Amino acid sequence: MIKFSLIVVGTEITQGYSRDTNSRVLAQALTVRGFEAHTIIKVPDSVALISQSINYLRRYSKILILTGGLGSTHDDVTREALSKALGRKLELRDELKIRMERLIPKGADNDMFLKQAYLPAGAKAILPEQGSAPGIIIEDEGRLIFALPGVPREMKAMLETVIKRIQTKFPRQPEQKQRIIKVFGAGEPLVAKEIDSIIKEYKDLDFTILAGIEEIKLIISLFAADGSYPAGRLEEAKKRITEVLGEVVFGFGDISLEQVVGDDLKRRNIKLFVAESCTGGLLSQKITAVSGSSEYFLGGVVSYSNQIKVDLLNVSPAVLEEYGAVSKEVAVEMAAGARAVSQADLALSITGIAGPGGGTSEKPVGLVFMAISDSNRTETRRFDFSGSRDAVRCQAAQSALNIIRLYLKKL
Amino acid sequence: MIKFSLIVVGTEITQGYSRDTNSRVLAQALTVRGFEAHTIIKVPDSVALISQSINYLRRYSKILILTGGLGSTHDDVTREALSKALGRKLELRDELKIRMERLIPKGADNDMFLKQAYLPAGAKAILPEQGSAPGIIIEDEGRLIFALPGVPREMKAMLETVIKRIQTKFPRQPEQKQRIIKVFGAGEPLVAKEIDSIIKEYKDLDFTILAGIEEIKLIISLFAADGSYPAGRLEEAKKRITEVLGEVVFGFGDISLEQVVGDDLKRRNIKLFVAESCTGGLLSQKITAVSGSSEYFLGGVVSYSNQIKVDLLNVSPAVLEEYGAVSKEVAVEMAAGARAVSQADLALSITGIAGPGGGTSEKPVGLVFMAISDSNRTETRRFDFSGSRDAVRCQAAQSALNIIRLYLKKL
Repeated sequence: MIKFSLIVVGTEITQGYSRDTNSRVLAQALTVRGFEAHTIIKVPDSVALISQSINYLRRYSKILILTGGLGSTHDDVTREALSKALGRKLELRDELKIRMERLIPKGADNDMFLKQAYLPAGAKAILPEQGSAPGIIIEDEGRLIFALPGVPREMKAMLETVIKRIQTKFPRQPEQKQRIIKVFGAGEPLVAKEIDSIIKEYKDLDFTILAGIEEIKLIISLFAADGSYPAGRLEEAKKRITEVLGEVVFGFGDISLEQVVGDDLKRRNIKLFVAESCTGGLLSQKITAVSGSSEYFLGGVVSYSNQIKVDLLNVSPAVLEEYGAVSKEVAVEMAAGARAVSQADLALSITGIAGPGGGTSEKPVGLVFMAISDSNRTETRRFDFSGSRDAVRCQAAQSALNIIRLYLKKL
Repeated sequence: MIKFSLIVVGTEITQGYSRDTNSRVLAQALTVRGFEAHTIIKVPDSVALISQSINYLRRYSKILILTGGLGSTHDDVTREALSKALGRKLELRDELKIRMERLIPKGADNDMFLKQAYLPAGAKAILPEQGSAPGIIIEDEGRLIFALPGVPREMKAMLETVIKRIQTKFPRQPEQKQRIIKVFGAGEPLVAKEIDSIIKEYKDLDFTILAGIEEIKLIISLFAADGSYPAGRLEEAKKRITEVLGEVVFGFGDISLEQVVGDDLKRRNIKLFVAESCTGGLLSQKITAVSGSSEYFLGGVVSYSNQIKVDLLNVSPAVLEEYGAVSKEVAVEMAAGARAVSQADLALSITGIAGPGGGTSEKPVGLVFMAISDSNRTETRRFDFSGSRDAVRCQAAQSALNIIRLYLKKL
């Protein structure tokens, strides 16, 4: 397989102040197209360190992509590093100069800004649709070297051009075929154990389990060389795993739990309303992150205080007093009230203790009650989550979505 | 300065399927303690590539930390790679074996699990509080090499031990002193321009501007060697920048906009309620992400449908019809209604078009109206955001927090 390497440039990244998202986007784009990652390097804004990394990685990589350090401040030294590592002088390109002169921002230092019009000898520019910095393509002794801007949206805007260039140079790679199974409601050890015998049967396939709070992602993959692709193997393995795991499988591919729930609500023409306490709007936010959610989501009440539970959701003060806000009984009243005030077909309520404060021995941090209510009945669930405030809230919101998913499935 | 390098091990990371958060945590922890990043490398689960990376980086680094690949599956090969790179045989440690035997999970392959009881010759174990995999410390010709688990919480649980060991070996580093200024409500070019002359005056300090949708983070830093630290320089620069930038500065250090707003609401004993349309709960979610927010946040209504605006917020159907849901007029009614139904001191409303659908030439995607209302008056703001659905929603929620912040400041 053809190897690629990446170099992410930026002191703010190696110091840990800034998150690098570019390398992940690039790695995934190349992996699925059949190229294999050799090494991903992050280095500070240093001509010496960048050029040293280029020289280290070009020995092992047919494709080398740098991101960052192409701007016009004195920290932007990727051009110089390329020049040094490859022994190619930087040359002023007239066509870039003319372009740049039009773009100089008010108050900018012209000479510094025009740095972006220089390219290493023999290099080609990728003209940006976004931002000012041109990308760079260099043919280097049978390999391709790219330098792309560090700003994620500017980098992404050049990605298609980069992929095309790579596929022209290295055509017909064995594509990585994949199936992705999404799971919620079972822990990683359990999932791993249940599918263990299937994994052992399909020795030609790769199985990766990625577990997070929001979901477990099970990736089945295979490098399919032209012609030699055992058609149906992936699909067969996916099917068997899905059968074994049962209802904890919520979808396939890129889909999220909120998208699955949304699609099902839309198909069944069911209008949803929610009442949130400890999740404080997180559930609503997730549901409405899906474009088009207004077709099935009427809205919600974030009843953070008891008075709002009473005034907006018609929760009985007596029930609140007797059982406390975090109780099965209040969850039921919240859900029923939410449905009544909104005239929704379906309502879900969440009440719990997200922490870190507010827990007692009887009602510890992580205790969460939920209720789901339609015109026929109201069902409740109790959860005992662990982890930080964030983790409890996130598990609660995902579990709420899962309750709705399973409710819809049973209809 | 003493250089450190990091090696993150994991094919799921180099393929872009999994996010690496460990290197950022480690880099920041070492940077603030006066160590300098040389290179951060990510490699697949490959003995050859890991050991090659070790040998490349140990030439340049006094501190080398690996994360990942210490578990008990056949993909976990960091121990073997260390052994190969450093020429140290793997030895079974009895004390680790005894410990491991107690931890073997049901259904696990005993021999595989006991891999974790092997260490390279001369290495010491870091016994884990979380998880099963011990960390590894190796003294290697004047440098320190660590191998830590890849699971973030297991890695973090060993961080203190690692830092202590490093500071014992390399004491009295010039500590990095910092001041962080947080800004919202002005673009990066404007901020950069306004503080340009100050930056030029303080040549002994480093200035980094990190711009994101949620905030701009301005880091002023200085490596303060023992005794030679020009006391007050950092504080002086921080003060001058804060004066020049004015009210767009919302805080210092690690604080978030929602924390600043929360602190101020609490201090002034003002109860807040919100009415969200296009942000769909994101604003409430941010406010309630702060622990203790129940002291000042009563809750909110996510009025995603018009009917909910009418039924729960008393928005007049006539106003909705005349001006449309995304209008200054409806924002005003939402805010006033929110305050009335909740009896809050202060209410804020958001209505807009998050996109990607739903825009028209008159009311394009990104158009958002907000209103803030107290017992005396209601003020409105219009925004024209750009970017994806996510970006519009995020800008809207942050801008809403900022409106509340500025409102409180004027009291």
